[in-house]
Amino acid sequence: MPDALQRVETALTAAIVGAGGIGAPPRLAAALQHAVFPGGARIRPRLCLAVADACAEDMPGLSDAAAAAIELLHCASLVHDDMPCFDDATLRRGRASVHHRFGANVALLAGDALIVLAFETLGHAAPSSPQRLAQILLILARSSGMPGGIVGGQGWECETDVDLGAYARAKTGALFAGATMVGAAAAGAEPEPWRLFGERLGEAYQVADDIADTRSGAAEIGKPIGRDLALGRPNAVLRLGLSGALRRLQALVEGATASIPPCRDPDGLRRLILVEVQRLLPKDTVLRAA
Amino acid sequence: MPDALQRVETALTAAIVGAGGIGAPPRLAAALQHAVFPGGARIRPRLCLAVADACAEDMPGLSDAAAAAIELLHCASLVHDDMPCFDDATLRRGRASVHHRFGANVALLAGDALIVLAFETLGHAAPSSPQRLAQILLILARSSGMPGGIVGGQGWECETDVDLGAYARAKTGALFAGATMVGAAAAGAEPEPWRLFGERLGEAYQVADDIADTRSGAAEIGKPIGRDLALGRPNAVLRLGLSGALRRLQALVEGATASIPPCRDPDGLRRLILVEVQRLLPKDTVLRAA
Repeated sequence: MPDALQRVETALTAAIVGAGGIGAPPRLAAALQHAVFPGGARIRPRLCLAVADACAEDMPGLSDAAAAAIELLHCASLVHDDMPCFDDATLRRGRASVHHRFGANVALLAGDALIVLAFETLGHAAPSSPQRLAQILLILARSSGMPGGIVGGQGWECETDVDLGAYARAKTGALFAGATMVGAAAAGAEPEPWRLFGERLGEAYQVADDIADTRSGAAEIGKPIGRDLALGRPNAVLRLGLSGALRRLQALVEGATASIPPCRDPDGLRRLILVEVQRLLPKDTVLRAA
Repeated sequence: MPDALQRVETALTAAIVGAGGIGAPPRLAAALQHAVFPGGARIRPRLCLAVADACAEDMPGLSDAAAAAIELLHCASLVHDDMPCFDDATLRRGRASVHHRFGANVALLAGDALIVLAFETLGHAAPSSPQRLAQILLILARSSGMPGGIVGGQGWECETDVDLGAYARAKTGALFAGATMVGAAAAGAEPEPWRLFGERLGEAYQVADDIADTRSGAAEIGKPIGRDLALGRPNAVLRLGLSGALRRLQALVEGATASIPPCRDPDGLRRLILVEVQRLLPKDTVLRAA
Protein backbone atom coordinates (compact mmCIF):
# COMPACT_ATOMS: atom_id res chain seq x y z
CA MET A 1 0.00 0.00 0.00
CA PRO A 2 1.52 3.39 -0.96
CA ASP A 3 1.73 5.91 1.86
CA ALA A 4 -1.16 8.29 2.48
CA LEU A 5 0.39 11.37 0.87
CA GLN A 6 1.18 9.43 -2.29
CA ARG A 7 -2.38 8.11 -2.46
CA VAL A 8 -3.73 11.64 -2.10
CA GLU A 9 -1.46 13.06 -4.81
CA THR A 10 -2.35 10.22 -7.19
CA ALA A 11 -6.08 10.72 -6.70
CA LEU A 12 -5.80 14.50 -7.08
CA THR A 13 -3.68 14.15 -10.22
CA ALA A 14 -6.27 11.87 -11.84
CA ALA A 15 -9.02 14.35 -11.00
CA ILE A 16 -7.17 17.40 -12.36
CA VAL A 17 -6.06 15.58 -15.53
CA GLY A 18 -9.68 14.60 -16.17
CA ALA A 19 -10.90 18.16 -15.63
CA GLY A 20 -8.36 19.42 -18.18
CA GLY A 21 -9.41 16.90 -20.82
CA ILE A 22 -10.91 17.34 -24.31
CA GLY A 23 -12.74 20.64 -24.76
CA ALA A 24 -11.22 22.35 -21.72
CA PRO A 25 -10.41 26.05 -22.03
CA PRO A 26 -6.61 26.13 -21.55
CA ARG A 27 -6.24 28.97 -19.04
CA LEU A 28 -8.91 27.59 -16.74
CA ALA A 29 -7.31 24.14 -16.98
CA ALA A 30 -3.95 25.69 -16.03
CA ALA A 31 -5.59 27.53 -13.13
CA LEU A 32 -6.99 24.26 -11.73
CA GLN A 33 -3.52 22.74 -11.88
CA HIS A 34 -2.06 25.83 -10.16
CA ALA A 35 -4.73 25.75 -7.45
CA VAL A 36 -4.06 22.14 -6.48
CA PHE A 37 -0.34 21.55 -7.22
CA PRO A 38 2.07 21.73 -5.57
CA GLY A 39 -0.08 21.25 -2.53
CA GLY A 40 0.25 22.25 1.08
CA ALA A 41 0.54 19.62 3.79
CA ARG A 42 -2.71 17.91 2.60
CA ILE A 43 -3.69 17.65 6.25
CA ARG A 44 -7.40 17.02 5.67
CA PRO A 45 -7.13 14.21 3.10
CA ARG A 46 -4.37 12.50 5.07
CA LEU A 47 -6.54 12.70 8.15
CA CYS A 48 -9.37 11.16 6.12
CA LEU A 49 -7.16 8.26 5.04
CA ALA A 50 -5.82 7.80 8.58
CA VAL A 51 -9.36 7.44 9.88
CA ALA A 52 -10.28 5.07 7.03
CA ASP A 53 -7.26 2.98 7.93
CA ALA A 54 -8.14 3.07 11.63
CA CYS A 55 -11.61 1.82 10.65
CA ALA A 56 -10.08 -1.10 8.69
CA GLU A 57 -10.86 0.20 5.22
CA ASP A 58 -11.95 -2.40 2.70
CA MET A 59 -12.40 -0.15 -0.36
CA PRO A 60 -9.26 1.94 -0.69
CA GLY A 61 -10.43 3.40 -4.01
CA LEU A 62 -13.45 4.88 -2.25
CA SER A 63 -11.31 6.27 0.60
CA ASP A 64 -8.95 7.86 -1.95
CA ALA A 65 -11.86 9.49 -3.75
CA ALA A 66 -13.34 10.80 -0.50
CA ALA A 67 -9.93 12.17 0.56
CA ALA A 68 -9.37 13.85 -2.80
CA ALA A 69 -12.87 15.35 -2.69
CA ILE A 70 -12.15 16.87 0.74
CA GLU A 71 -8.90 18.42 -0.55
CA LEU A 72 -10.56 19.75 -3.72
CA LEU A 73 -13.23 21.47 -1.62
CA HIS A 74 -10.48 22.93 0.56
CA CYS A 75 -8.53 24.18 -2.50
CA ALA A 76 -11.73 25.72 -3.90
CA SER A 77 -12.26 27.64 -0.67
CA LEU A 78 -8.69 28.96 -0.79
CA VAL A 79 -9.04 30.15 -4.39
CA HIS A 80 -12.25 32.04 -3.64
CA ASP A 81 -11.01 33.28 -0.25
CA ASP A 82 -8.00 34.90 -1.93
CA MET A 83 -10.09 36.78 -4.52
CA PRO A 84 -10.11 40.58 -4.65
CA CYS A 85 -13.71 40.75 -3.42
CA PHE A 86 -12.71 38.66 -0.38
CA ASP A 87 -9.27 38.68 1.27
CA ASP A 88 -7.52 40.07 -1.82
CA ALA A 89 -4.44 37.93 -1.11
CA THR A 90 -1.77 37.80 -3.82
CA LEU A 91 0.32 35.09 -2.16
CA ARG A 92 -0.63 31.47 -1.42
CA ARG A 93 1.65 28.52 -0.63
CA GLY A 94 4.63 30.73 -1.37
CA ARG A 95 3.63 31.81 -4.87
CA ALA A 96 1.00 33.82 -6.75
CA SER A 97 -2.59 33.13 -5.75
CA VAL A 98 -4.85 31.95 -8.58
CA HIS A 99 -6.54 35.31 -9.21
CA HIS A 100 -3.20 37.12 -9.08
CA ARG A 101 -1.78 34.80 -11.71
CA PHE A 102 -4.85 34.17 -13.93
CA GLY A 103 -7.25 37.03 -13.19
CA ALA A 104 -10.37 37.20 -11.02
CA ASN A 105 -12.67 35.82 -13.75
CA VAL A 106 -10.62 32.64 -14.15
CA ALA A 107 -10.21 32.30 -10.36
CA LEU A 108 -13.98 32.52 -9.93
CA LEU A 109 -14.49 29.67 -12.40
CA ALA A 110 -11.57 27.66 -11.00
CA GLY A 111 -13.19 27.58 -7.56
CA ASP A 112 -16.51 26.56 -9.09
CA ALA A 113 -14.87 23.81 -11.14
CA LEU A 114 -13.04 22.45 -8.08
CA ILE A 115 -16.29 22.20 -6.11
CA VAL A 116 -17.97 20.29 -8.92
CA LEU A 117 -14.85 18.15 -9.38
CA ALA A 118 -14.97 17.11 -5.73
CA PHE A 119 -18.41 15.57 -6.22
CA GLU A 120 -17.50 14.14 -9.62
CA THR A 121 -14.44 12.43 -8.12
CA LEU A 122 -16.67 10.78 -5.57
CA GLY A 123 -19.11 9.75 -8.30
CA HIS A 124 -16.38 7.99 -10.25
CA ALA A 125 -15.48 5.79 -7.27
CA ALA A 126 -19.05 5.16 -6.28
CA PRO A 127 -20.16 2.23 -8.44
CA SER A 128 -18.13 0.01 -6.11
CA SER A 129 -20.43 0.94 -3.24
CA PRO A 130 -23.61 2.86 -4.04
CA GLN A 131 -24.81 2.42 -0.45
CA ARG A 132 -21.88 4.38 1.00
CA LEU A 133 -22.07 7.00 -1.74
CA ALA A 134 -25.16 8.79 -0.48
CA GLN A 135 -23.71 9.04 3.02
CA ILE A 136 -20.36 10.42 1.82
CA LEU A 137 -22.08 12.80 -0.58
CA LEU A 138 -24.18 14.32 2.20
CA ILE A 139 -21.20 14.68 4.55
CA LEU A 140 -19.18 16.43 1.83
CA ALA A 141 -22.05 18.78 1.02
CA ARG A 142 -22.81 19.66 4.62
CA SER A 143 -19.18 20.30 5.48
CA SER A 144 -18.68 22.59 2.50
CA GLY A 145 -21.99 24.37 1.88
CA MET A 146 -24.74 26.21 3.76
CA PRO A 147 -25.63 26.63 6.54
CA GLY A 148 -22.81 24.98 8.47
CA GLY A 149 -19.97 24.27 6.01
CA ILE A 150 -17.00 26.31 4.80
CA VAL A 151 -19.14 28.55 2.60
CA GLY A 152 -21.34 29.31 5.61
CA GLY A 153 -18.20 30.14 7.60
CA GLN A 154 -16.98 32.48 4.91
CA GLY A 155 -20.45 33.99 4.87
CA TRP A 156 -19.99 35.12 8.48
CA GLU A 157 -17.03 37.20 7.26
CA CYS A 158 -19.57 39.26 5.30
CA GLU A 159 -21.74 40.05 8.36
CA THR A 160 -21.37 42.99 10.72
CA ASP A 161 -22.83 41.06 13.67
CA VAL A 162 -20.90 37.79 13.79
CA ASP A 163 -21.86 34.59 15.60
CA LEU A 164 -18.27 33.64 16.50
CA GLY A 165 -19.13 30.08 17.48
CA ALA A 166 -20.99 29.37 14.23
CA TYR A 167 -18.19 31.10 12.33
CA ALA A 168 -15.38 28.95 13.80
CA ARG A 169 -17.36 25.71 13.55
CA ALA A 170 -18.19 26.31 9.91
CA LYS A 171 -15.02 27.97 8.61
CA THR A 172 -12.53 25.38 9.85
CA GLY A 173 -14.25 22.77 12.00
CA ALA A 174 -16.73 21.59 9.39
CA LEU A 175 -14.23 20.36 6.80
CA PHE A 176 -12.05 18.67 9.44
CA ALA A 177 -15.14 16.92 10.77
CA GLY A 178 -16.01 16.12 7.17
CA ALA A 179 -12.55 14.59 6.65
CA THR A 180 -12.81 12.28 9.65
CA MET A 181 -16.43 11.37 8.92
CA VAL A 182 -15.99 10.53 5.22
CA GLY A 183 -12.91 8.50 6.17
CA ALA A 184 -15.08 6.41 8.47
CA ALA A 185 -17.98 6.23 5.99
CA ALA A 186 -15.70 5.16 3.12
CA ALA A 187 -14.52 2.29 5.33
CA GLY A 188 -18.09 1.25 6.07
CA ALA A 189 -18.03 2.52 9.69
CA GLU A 190 -20.59 4.82 11.30
CA PRO A 191 -19.40 8.38 10.58
CA GLU A 192 -21.18 10.24 13.39
CA PRO A 193 -18.88 9.06 16.26
CA TRP A 194 -15.96 10.64 14.35
CA ARG A 195 -17.48 14.13 14.22
CA LEU A 196 -16.23 15.42 17.59
CA PHE A 197 -12.69 14.25 16.92
CA GLY A 198 -12.66 16.16 13.62
CA GLU A 199 -14.25 19.28 15.11
CA ARG A 200 -11.69 19.50 17.89
CA LEU A 201 -8.86 18.96 15.43
CA GLY A 202 -10.28 21.71 13.28
CA GLU A 203 -10.38 24.08 16.21
CA ALA A 204 -6.82 23.11 17.17
CA TYR A 205 -5.73 23.70 13.60
CA GLN A 206 -7.35 27.13 13.65
CA VAL A 207 -5.55 28.13 16.86
CA ALA A 208 -2.23 26.87 15.46
CA ASP A 209 -2.91 28.87 12.29
CA ASP A 210 -3.70 31.95 14.40
CA ILE A 211 -0.35 31.54 16.16
CA ALA A 212 1.43 31.23 12.82
CA ASP A 213 -0.41 34.30 11.51
CA THR A 214 0.99 36.45 14.29
CA ARG A 215 4.45 34.89 14.71
CA SER A 216 5.88 33.27 11.57
CA GLY A 217 7.84 34.85 8.79
CA ALA A 218 5.88 34.95 5.51
CA ALA A 219 8.46 32.65 3.92
CA GLU A 220 7.87 30.04 6.58
CA ILE A 221 4.12 29.61 6.06
CA GLY A 222 3.94 30.68 2.41
CA LYS A 223 1.36 33.41 2.90
CA PRO A 224 1.39 36.91 4.37
CA ILE A 225 1.22 37.22 8.15
CA GLY A 226 -0.82 39.63 10.25
CA ARG A 227 -3.80 39.20 7.92
CA ASP A 228 -6.30 38.53 10.73
CA LEU A 229 -5.46 41.84 12.38
CA ALA A 230 -5.54 43.67 9.04
CA LEU A 231 -8.90 42.11 8.07
CA GLY A 232 -10.45 42.33 11.54
CA ARG A 233 -10.81 38.55 11.81
CA PRO A 234 -10.96 36.73 15.14
CA ASN A 235 -7.55 35.39 16.18
CA ALA A 236 -6.79 33.36 19.32
CA VAL A 237 -3.45 35.13 19.95
CA LEU A 238 -5.01 38.57 19.71
CA ARG A 239 -7.73 37.39 22.12
CA LEU A 240 -5.76 35.21 24.59
CA GLY A 241 -2.13 36.25 24.17
CA LEU A 242 0.49 33.82 22.91
CA SER A 243 0.77 31.70 26.05
CA GLY A 244 -3.02 31.61 26.40
CA ALA A 245 -3.33 30.49 22.78
CA LEU A 246 -0.73 27.77 23.31
CA ARG A 247 -2.59 26.52 26.41
CA ARG A 248 -5.80 26.49 24.40
CA LEU A 249 -4.10 24.54 21.61
CA GLN A 250 -2.72 22.02 24.09
CA ALA A 251 -6.18 21.49 25.58
CA LEU A 252 -7.77 21.07 22.14
CA VAL A 253 -5.21 18.50 21.04
CA GLU A 254 -5.76 16.56 24.25
CA GLY A 255 -9.52 16.85 23.79
CA ALA A 256 -9.21 15.58 20.22
CA THR A 257 -7.14 12.55 21.15
CA ALA A 258 -9.54 11.79 24.00
CA SER A 259 -12.44 11.73 21.56
CA ILE A 260 -11.04 9.14 19.16
CA PRO A 261 -13.75 6.46 18.92
CA PRO A 262 -12.84 2.81 19.48
CA CYS A 263 -10.84 1.63 16.45
CA ARG A 264 -7.93 -0.61 15.62
CA ASP A 265 -5.10 1.94 15.89
CA PRO A 266 -5.87 4.96 18.11
CA ASP A 267 -2.16 5.41 18.92
CA GLY A 268 -1.31 5.85 15.26
CA LEU A 269 -3.93 8.61 15.01
CA ARG A 270 -2.58 10.31 18.14
CA ARG A 271 0.95 10.38 16.74
CA LEU A 272 -0.26 11.78 13.43
CA ILE A 273 -2.07 14.61 15.14
CA LEU A 274 0.88 15.65 17.27
CA VAL A 275 3.23 15.71 14.27
CA GLU A 276 0.75 17.69 12.20
CA VAL A 277 0.01 20.31 14.84
CA GLN A 278 3.71 20.77 15.57
CA ARG A 279 4.37 21.25 11.87
CA LEU A 280 1.94 24.17 11.81
CA LEU A 281 3.59 26.03 14.66
CA PRO A 282 6.50 28.46 14.29
CA LYS A 283 9.85 26.73 14.78
CA ASP A 284 10.44 28.18 18.27
CA THR A 285 7.08 26.99 19.63
CA VAL A 286 6.96 23.47 20.99
CA LEU A 287 3.88 21.55 22.06
CA ARG A 288 4.12 19.06 24.93
CA ALA A 289 3.50 15.45 24.02
CA ALA A 290 -0.17 14.68 24.65
CA MET B 1 -49.78 14.63 -9.18
CA PRO B 2 -49.05 18.40 -8.97
CA ASP B 3 -47.96 20.03 -12.23
CA ALA B 4 -44.29 20.20 -13.13
CA LEU B 5 -43.71 23.84 -12.21
CA GLN B 6 -45.29 23.34 -8.81
CA ARG B 7 -43.09 20.30 -8.17
CA VAL B 8 -40.00 22.30 -9.13
CA GLU B 9 -40.90 25.22 -6.86
CA THR B 10 -41.64 22.90 -3.94
CA ALA B 11 -38.31 21.09 -4.28
CA LEU B 12 -36.38 24.37 -4.65
CA THR B 13 -38.13 25.86 -1.64
CA ALA B 14 -37.20 22.88 0.53
CA ALA B 15 -33.57 23.17 -0.58
CA ILE B 16 -33.30 26.90 0.07
CA VAL B 17 -35.05 26.66 3.44
CA GLY B 18 -32.59 23.95 4.47
CA ALA B 19 -29.61 26.03 3.34
CA GLY B 20 -30.82 28.94 5.44
CA GLY B 21 -31.22 26.82 8.59
CA ILE B 22 -29.55 26.98 12.00
CA GLY B 23 -26.15 28.68 11.93
CA ALA B 24 -26.63 30.34 8.54
CA PRO B 25 -25.16 33.83 8.09
CA PRO B 26 -28.28 35.94 7.40
CA ARG B 27 -27.12 37.97 4.39
CA LEU B 28 -25.85 34.92 2.55
CA ALA B 29 -29.09 33.10 3.32
CA ALA B 30 -31.04 36.07 1.91
CA ALA B 31 -28.81 36.07 -1.18
CA LEU B 32 -29.61 32.41 -1.85
CA GLN B 33 -33.30 33.18 -1.64
CA HIS B 34 -32.86 36.15 -3.98
CA ALA B 35 -30.87 34.06 -6.46
CA VAL B 36 -33.52 31.36 -6.78
CA PHE B 37 -36.87 33.13 -6.16
CA PRO B 38 -38.85 34.33 -7.94
CA GLY B 39 -37.51 32.15 -10.74
CA GLY B 40 -37.47 32.48 -14.49
CA ALA B 41 -39.34 30.01 -16.67
CA ARG B 42 -37.57 27.04 -14.98
CA ILE B 43 -37.14 25.58 -18.45
CA ARG B 44 -34.39 23.08 -17.53
CA PRO B 45 -36.05 21.46 -14.50
CA ARG B 46 -39.42 21.29 -16.28
CA LEU B 47 -37.70 19.63 -19.21
CA CYS B 48 -36.13 17.17 -16.76
CA LEU B 49 -39.53 16.31 -15.30
CA ALA B 50 -41.09 16.03 -18.74
CA VAL B 51 -38.45 13.48 -19.74
CA ALA B 52 -38.86 11.60 -16.46
CA ASP B 53 -42.60 11.46 -17.13
CA ALA B 54 -42.04 10.34 -20.71
CA CYS B 55 -39.83 7.56 -19.29
CA ALA B 56 -42.62 6.44 -16.93
CA GLU B 57 -41.03 7.72 -13.72
CA ASP B 58 -41.47 5.48 -10.70
CA MET B 59 -39.64 7.61 -8.11
CA PRO B 60 -41.04 11.14 -8.36
CA GLY B 61 -39.02 12.26 -5.30
CA LEU B 62 -35.81 11.41 -7.12
CA SER B 63 -36.95 13.19 -10.30
CA ASP B 64 -37.86 16.26 -8.25
CA ALA B 65 -34.41 16.28 -6.63
CA ALA B 66 -32.67 15.90 -9.98
CA ALA B 67 -34.75 18.71 -11.47
CA ALA B 68 -34.07 21.00 -8.51
CA ALA B 69 -30.35 20.22 -8.71
CA ILE B 70 -30.29 21.20 -12.40
CA GLU B 71 -32.00 24.50 -11.63
CA LEU B 72 -29.71 25.25 -8.65
CA LEU B 73 -26.66 24.73 -10.88
CA HIS B 74 -28.22 27.04 -13.45
CA CYS B 75 -28.93 29.72 -10.81
CA ALA B 76 -25.34 29.42 -9.54
CA SER B 77 -24.00 30.05 -13.02
CA LEU B 78 -26.20 33.14 -13.38
CA VAL B 79 -25.02 34.57 -10.05
CA HIS B 80 -21.35 34.15 -10.94
CA ASP B 81 -21.87 35.20 -14.58
CA ASP B 82 -23.32 38.52 -13.40
CA MET B 83 -20.39 39.33 -11.09
CA PRO B 84 -18.21 42.39 -11.70
CA CYS B 85 -15.23 40.24 -12.72
CA PHE B 86 -17.42 38.59 -15.36
CA ASP B 87 -20.32 40.24 -17.19
CA ASP B 88 -20.81 42.92 -14.53
CA ALA B 89 -24.58 42.81 -14.98
CA THR B 90 -26.69 44.72 -12.47
CA LEU B 91 -30.05 43.41 -13.69
CA ARG B 92 -31.34 39.83 -13.69
CA ARG B 93 -34.92 38.60 -14.07
CA GLY B 94 -36.08 42.21 -13.95
CA ARG B 95 -34.43 43.18 -10.64
CA ALA B 96 -31.05 43.66 -9.01
CA SER B 97 -28.53 40.88 -9.65
CA VAL B 98 -27.19 39.18 -6.52
CA HIS B 99 -23.86 41.03 -6.44
CA HIS B 100 -25.59 44.35 -7.10
CA ARG B 101 -27.92 43.79 -4.16
CA PHE B 102 -25.62 41.98 -1.69
CA GLY B 103 -22.07 42.77 -2.81
CA ALA B 104 -19.55 40.72 -4.78
CA ASN B 105 -18.27 38.83 -1.73
CA VAL B 106 -21.74 37.51 -0.85
CA ALA B 107 -22.49 36.76 -4.53
CA LEU B 108 -19.29 34.74 -4.76
CA LEU B 109 -20.35 32.62 -1.79
CA ALA B 110 -23.96 32.39 -2.95
CA GLY B 111 -22.87 30.76 -6.21
CA ASP B 112 -20.64 28.35 -4.32
CA ALA B 113 -23.42 27.47 -1.90
CA LEU B 114 -25.88 26.83 -4.75
CA ILE B 115 -23.47 24.42 -6.45
CA VAL B 116 -23.00 22.47 -3.22
CA LEU B 117 -26.74 22.60 -2.56
CA ALA B 118 -27.45 21.00 -5.94
CA PHE B 119 -25.47 17.93 -4.96
CA GLU B 120 -26.82 17.92 -1.42
CA THR B 121 -30.39 18.00 -2.75
CA LEU B 122 -29.64 14.93 -4.82
CA GLY B 123 -28.06 13.23 -1.80
CA HIS B 124 -31.18 13.74 0.30
CA ALA B 125 -33.34 11.94 -2.26
CA ALA B 126 -30.81 9.20 -2.90
CA PRO B 127 -31.44 6.62 -0.18
CA SER B 128 -34.52 5.59 -2.16
CA SER B 129 -32.27 4.46 -5.01
CA PRO B 130 -28.52 4.37 -4.39
CA GLN B 131 -27.98 2.65 -7.75
CA ARG B 132 -29.37 5.59 -9.71
CA LEU B 133 -27.57 8.12 -7.51
CA ALA B 134 -24.06 7.59 -8.92
CA GLN B 135 -25.33 7.94 -12.48
CA ILE B 136 -27.25 11.15 -11.77
CA LEU B 137 -24.34 12.56 -9.75
CA LEU B 138 -21.92 12.08 -12.64
CA ILE B 139 -24.30 13.60 -15.20
CA LEU B 140 -24.82 16.66 -12.98
CA ALA B 141 -21.08 17.07 -12.44
CA ARG B 142 -20.16 16.67 -16.12
CA SER B 143 -22.83 19.07 -17.28
CA SER B 144 -21.78 21.77 -14.81
CA GLY B 145 -18.00 21.42 -14.34
CA MET B 146 -14.83 21.01 -16.37
CA PRO B 147 -14.00 20.30 -19.13
CA GLY B 148 -17.38 20.22 -20.88
CA GLY B 149 -19.96 21.70 -18.49
CA ILE B 150 -21.18 25.25 -17.87
CA VAL B 151 -18.03 26.25 -16.02
CA GLY B 152 -15.96 25.05 -18.96
CA GLY B 153 -18.17 27.10 -21.27
CA GLN B 154 -17.72 30.21 -19.13
CA GLY B 155 -13.99 29.46 -19.18
CA TRP B 156 -13.95 29.96 -22.96
CA GLU B 157 -15.14 33.51 -22.32
CA CYS B 158 -11.76 34.11 -20.63
CA GLU B 159 -9.71 32.97 -23.65
CA THR B 160 -8.49 35.08 -26.56
CA ASP B 161 -8.54 32.14 -28.99
CA VAL B 162 -12.00 30.58 -28.61
CA ASP B 163 -13.14 27.13 -29.73
CA LEU B 164 -16.67 28.24 -30.66
CA GLY B 165 -18.02 24.69 -30.90
CA ALA B 166 -16.72 23.69 -27.47
CA TYR B 167 -17.95 27.01 -26.09
CA ALA B 168 -21.53 26.59 -27.30
CA ARG B 169 -21.74 22.92 -26.34
CA ALA B 170 -20.51 23.62 -22.82
CA LYS B 171 -22.09 26.99 -22.05
CA THR B 172 -25.69 26.09 -22.92
CA GLY B 173 -25.86 22.62 -24.44
CA ALA B 174 -24.36 20.77 -21.50
CA LEU B 175 -26.96 21.68 -18.89
CA PHE B 176 -29.86 21.07 -21.28
CA ALA B 177 -28.39 17.66 -22.08
CA GLY B 178 -27.91 17.19 -18.33
CA ALA B 179 -31.58 18.05 -17.75
CA THR B 180 -32.88 15.47 -20.24
CA MET B 181 -30.36 12.82 -19.13
CA VAL B 182 -31.00 13.10 -15.38
CA GLY B 183 -34.72 13.02 -16.09
CA ALA B 184 -34.25 9.68 -17.83
CA ALA B 185 -31.81 8.37 -15.20
CA ALA B 186 -34.13 9.34 -12.34
CA ALA B 187 -36.86 7.28 -14.02
CA GLY B 188 -34.54 4.30 -14.34
CA ALA B 189 -34.09 4.67 -18.12
CA GLU B 190 -30.78 4.77 -19.99
CA PRO B 191 -29.71 8.44 -20.02
CA GLU B 192 -27.36 8.40 -23.04
CA PRO B 193 -30.10 8.22 -25.74
CA TRP B 194 -31.49 11.49 -24.33
CA ARG B 195 -28.26 13.45 -24.78
CA LEU B 196 -28.75 14.57 -28.40
CA PHE B 197 -32.29 15.76 -27.71
CA GLY B 198 -31.00 17.93 -24.87
CA GLU B 199 -28.04 19.25 -26.81
CA ARG B 200 -30.20 20.35 -29.74
CA LEU B 201 -32.68 21.98 -27.39
CA GLY B 202 -29.81 23.80 -25.70
CA GLU B 203 -28.58 25.10 -29.02
CA ALA B 204 -32.11 26.13 -30.00
CA TYR B 205 -32.47 27.92 -26.67
CA GLN B 206 -29.19 29.75 -27.28
CA VAL B 207 -30.31 30.96 -30.71
CA ALA B 208 -33.65 32.08 -29.28
CA ASP B 209 -31.78 33.91 -26.52
CA ASP B 210 -29.52 35.53 -29.12
CA ILE B 211 -32.60 36.77 -30.97
CA ALA B 212 -34.03 38.14 -27.73
CA ASP B 213 -30.70 39.83 -26.91
CA THR B 214 -30.82 41.82 -30.13
CA ARG B 215 -34.58 42.42 -30.41
CA SER B 216 -36.46 42.53 -27.13
CA GLY B 217 -37.01 45.41 -24.82
CA ALA B 218 -35.15 45.01 -21.50
CA ALA B 219 -38.49 44.91 -19.68
CA GLU B 220 -39.65 41.98 -21.75
CA ILE B 221 -36.78 39.62 -20.95
CA GLY B 222 -35.78 41.05 -17.57
CA LYS B 223 -32.15 41.71 -18.41
CA PRO B 224 -30.26 44.26 -20.51
CA ILE B 225 -30.19 43.70 -24.28
CA GLY B 226 -27.27 44.12 -26.68
CA ARG B 227 -24.92 42.48 -24.13
CA ASP B 228 -23.42 40.03 -26.62
CA LEU B 229 -22.33 42.85 -28.91
CA ALA B 230 -21.02 44.90 -25.98
CA LEU B 231 -19.09 41.91 -24.54
CA GLY B 232 -17.90 40.56 -27.90
CA ARG B 233 -19.77 37.29 -27.42
CA PRO B 234 -20.87 35.09 -30.32
CA ASN B 235 -24.51 35.77 -31.30
CA ALA B 236 -26.47 33.99 -34.04
CA VAL B 237 -28.26 37.18 -35.17
CA LEU B 238 -25.02 39.11 -35.51
CA ARG B 239 -23.59 36.17 -37.48
CA LEU B 240 -26.58 35.07 -39.60
CA GLY B 241 -28.95 38.05 -39.61
CA LEU B 242 -32.43 37.81 -38.06
CA SER B 243 -34.03 35.68 -40.78
CA GLY B 244 -30.99 33.39 -40.85
CA ALA B 245 -31.15 32.98 -37.08
CA LEU B 246 -34.87 32.18 -37.26
CA ARG B 247 -34.23 29.55 -39.94
CA ARG B 248 -31.48 28.08 -37.78
CA LEU B 249 -33.81 28.00 -34.78
CA GLN B 250 -36.52 26.29 -36.82
CA ALA B 251 -34.05 23.63 -37.98
CA LEU B 252 -32.79 23.03 -34.43
CA VAL B 253 -36.29 22.64 -33.02
CA GLU B 254 -37.12 20.16 -35.77
CA GLY B 255 -33.85 18.34 -35.15
CA ALA B 256 -34.59 18.18 -31.45
CA THR B 257 -38.07 16.76 -31.89
CA ALA B 258 -36.71 14.24 -34.41
CA SER B 259 -34.20 13.00 -31.85
CA ILE B 260 -36.67 12.18 -29.08
CA PRO B 261 -35.95 8.54 -28.19
CA PRO B 262 -38.79 6.01 -28.10
CA CYS B 263 -40.91 6.78 -25.02
CA ARG B 264 -44.53 6.77 -23.94
CA ASP B 265 -45.43 10.39 -24.84
CA PRO B 266 -43.23 11.95 -27.56
CA ASP B 267 -46.08 14.26 -28.64
CA GLY B 268 -46.28 15.78 -25.18
CA LEU B 269 -42.57 16.56 -25.31
CA ARG B 270 -42.90 18.12 -28.78
CA ARG B 271 -45.68 20.42 -27.62
CA LEU B 272 -43.70 21.48 -24.56
CA ILE B 273 -40.70 22.41 -26.68
CA LEU B 274 -42.66 24.51 -29.13
CA VAL B 275 -44.39 26.43 -26.36
CA GLU B 276 -41.09 27.02 -24.54
CA VAL B 277 -39.16 28.20 -27.57
CA GLN B 278 -42.00 30.53 -28.59
CA ARG B 279 -42.05 31.97 -25.08
CA LEU B 280 -38.39 32.98 -25.44
CA LEU B 281 -38.87 34.88 -28.67
CA PRO B 282 -39.87 38.53 -28.94
CA LYS B 283 -43.64 38.92 -29.29
CA ASP B 284 -43.52 39.78 -33.00
CA THR B 285 -41.49 36.67 -33.92
CA VAL B 286 -43.47 33.51 -34.60
CA LEU B 287 -42.08 30.02 -35.11
CA ARG B 288 -43.85 27.62 -37.46
CA ALA B 289 -45.36 24.53 -35.82
CA ALA B 290 -42.83 21.72 -36.08
